[in-house]
Amino acid sequence: MLKINFGTEGVTFPQGYKANGFACGLKSNGKRDVGMVVSDLPAVTAGTFTSNQFIASPIAYSRKIVRSKGTVRVILANAGNANACCGAYGDKVVSDSTGAVAKEIGISAKEILVFSTGKIGGKLPTEKIVDHLPEILKGLKPKNDGVFSEAILTTDTKKKCKSAEFKVNGKPVRIGCSAKGAGMIEPGMATMLCFITSDIAMPKALLQKTLSEAVSQSFNRITVDGDMSTNDSVVLLANGQSGVLVKTEKDQGYEEFRQSLIEICQTIAKAIVEDGEGATKMLKVSVKGAKTEKDAMEVCRSIGNSMLFKCSLFGESPDWGRILSSVGATKAKINFKNFKASFQGVVFYKNGEPDFKAKEKIKPLLKKKNIEVHIDLGAGNKSTFIWASDLTYEYVKINVV
Amino acid sequence: MLKINFGTEGVTFPQGYKANGFACGLKSNGKRDVGMVVSDLPAVTAGTFTSNQFIASPIAYSRKIVRSKGTVRVILANAGNANACCGAYGDKVVSDSTGAVAKEIGISAKEILVFSTGKIGGKLPTEKIVDHLPEILKGLKPKNDGVFSEAILTTDTKKKCKSAEFKVNGKPVRIGCSAKGAGMIEPGMATMLCFITSDIAMPKALLQKTLSEAVSQSFNRITVDGDMSTNDSVVLLANGQSGVLVKTEKDQGYEEFRQSLIEICQTIAKAIVEDGEGATKMLKVSVKGAKTEKDAMEVCRSIGNSMLFKCSLFGESPDWGRILSSVGATKAKINFKNFKASFQGVVFYKNGEPDFKAKEKIKPLLKKKNIEVHIDLGAGNKSTFIWASDLTYEYVKINVV
Repeated sequence: MLKINFGTEGVTFPQGYKANGFACGLKSNGKRDVGMVVSDLPAVTAGTFTSNQFIASPIAYSRKIVRSKGTVRVILANAGNANACCGAYGDKVVSDSTGAVAKEIGISAKEILVFSTGKIGGKLPTEKIVDHLPEILKGLKPKNDGVFSEAILTTDTKKKCKSAEFKVNGKPVRIGCSAKGAGMIEPGMATMLCFITSDIAMPKALLQKTLSEAVSQSFNRITVDGDMSTNDSVVLLANGQSGVLVKTEKDQGYEEFRQSLIEICQTIAKAIVEDGEGATKMLKVSVKGAKTEKDAMEVCRSIGNSMLFKCSLFGESPDWGRILSSVGATKAKINFKNFKASFQGVVFYKNGEPDFKAKEKIKPLLKKKNIEVHIDLGAGNKSTFIWASDLTYEYVKINVV
Repeated sequence: MLKINFGTEGVTFPQGYKANGFACGLKSNGKRDVGMVVSDLPAVTAGTFTSNQFIASPIAYSRKIVRSKGTVRVILANAGNANACCGAYGDKVVSDSTGAVAKEIGISAKEILVFSTGKIGGKLPTEKIVDHLPEILKGLKPKNDGVFSEAILTTDTKKKCKSAEFKVNGKPVRIGCSAKGAGMIEPGMATMLCFITSDIAMPKALLQKTLSEAVSQSFNRITVDGDMSTNDSVVLLANGQSGVLVKTEKDQGYEEFRQSLIEICQTIAKAIVEDGEGATKMLKVSVKGAKTEKDAMEVCRSIGNSMLFKCSLFGESPDWGRILSSVGATKAKINFKNFKASFQGVVFYKNGEPDFKAKEKIKPLLKKKNIEVHIDLGAGNKSTFIWASDLTYEYVKINVV
């Protein structure tokens, strides 16, 4: 393995990418709300998208492009309005905005990916974006991902960036990531936008395979509230500017690229949960001894999405009964004789019996921010894990509007 | 149809039942926490129980009796401690307490049903119940269900009772119900205890069939928080004291009994949601046009359990995007051309297009306590509905401990 240096740079970390972020008036608080990334060279693209049946217009458009054979030059993303569930109006916003960008830059609209995040079901005033295009383009600069990363945020309290670099035959290969996500986070992808850029050269099929694996190891294992968005997207652009070509999984640099991508996606996934709406705790639920992977994930999600248990976490209550009742509520195969469960490392149930003294031992350990639950179903050899946040007054406060 | 008179009496409304409720010190606030119902004659019994795999000791015990051929004389129920997930200790609490009751009354322990509700995973001090048995028995009286109904409550803010009466050939047939339930309310039965008594004479198989139908039309259609309890139970005792024997579905009085039971169960189910922990709203989600009943229920539950949408309800926000995104998050078949959705009677989506003016129309209608969502999936002819509550600061406050 070559040495990988990780950092906290965003989408302009790799060679050949410029970015900008601008306040176009879509956010009522006047903050930056439209971001753009431009690759100097056409980039090979991979992506994973929401499995929500009501997919938003921009996501349907971008998904089609990512799944085509073409390359991509531009990412256009706005926050403040998700342009979701808007029918023909939503489609027109997409064609008008991509059309305007294509014209200004002098490329095809099929080279532009477009993403929106924010409230669902409201009219996105395209002119607010189009009118500011000259200024946005004028401000495109290398090493300018700070303002881009700001522009894509909604209820997030902080920017989410992560980068990696390794050298193949002395040539640096870089990966940069700018992401957003804080609420409506759940299976089949978090409500989130995650933009990853790289200067590696890689065939589309391998790029997609590598991204899909990283997503399944990260974003598909987090939950804030069990709600699934209409706009979730992770895209990865590879423009080849590093001069390093990785054609197969056996080529030098592939394993480093793969590991970098997993690390980046896991870091961002955890950052999204940590920044979950109103979250004060970071829960990791690990399940082993499952008969099937599906069983393992069902148990993880049942615990991670239990409103009752999430309230307990917030209150630092050692009430492990809510863990067991969440396990029992699933259809997962349980071998009760071998079943074992622990909370913050304290085994509270094994051999069909609880430890009545466990609560006292667990209680002081819940003051920590990071909370761990381990379940052994005793019924097989499959395992998995999930990260989740707690349920707080602040979550309710953020979402009553 | 004979005339049915509904009322708000509890378990001692039918002939031949006595009850009591006593403060044994299981609730830290000193309120009544142990209740007992005694039938003068052996009663034929039906019941439905939690589908949680971690079924509590008392429920496992009572389920076995209900499923046997025997009859029942006594219901013993306590609140404050659920005696759940307690292994051999939990089993001993059950055998010790039923043994003591059997001895005091002079019946078999197999004629006693026992139920517990409250915190999971704590030791229930049996002696607190056993020591007070003489006083509990001494206080058993007809028309005394008020104190019984009080004793079974936990976080409930009010007693939940409902009764029905009709006459067959001049003889009154009565049904009385005392129930509890406020949190941990979800599929495969609410976290609740529901005790129904009747003086009808009916064979066990028909009694069970009629109860199962009423439960599927009521308790299995409510959700407060999506959490499934280890202790949920509905039991129905029929002691035959009315002198009215209904042997088959064709006999006079059967249809009245069936309708009474459905009405009683639906009233109690709605009362549980209305009294849901911290609840301020009563949501009814109706889904039609589904390809399968499973699809219809999946959509109902996805909306009714959406933390985001439940926050919206509390905040009286007309944010219908959260409804659509919950529908889309399911795997239910949707015919987008025929799909139609309304919120408080206002259609906000049809023919693949939203009504951008709907939010303004919906907003003032959300001040009402009763909220309705109607979804037409346009994909078939199956339909169903569910009742749910909202998600409030108070819910979090109640459950942080």
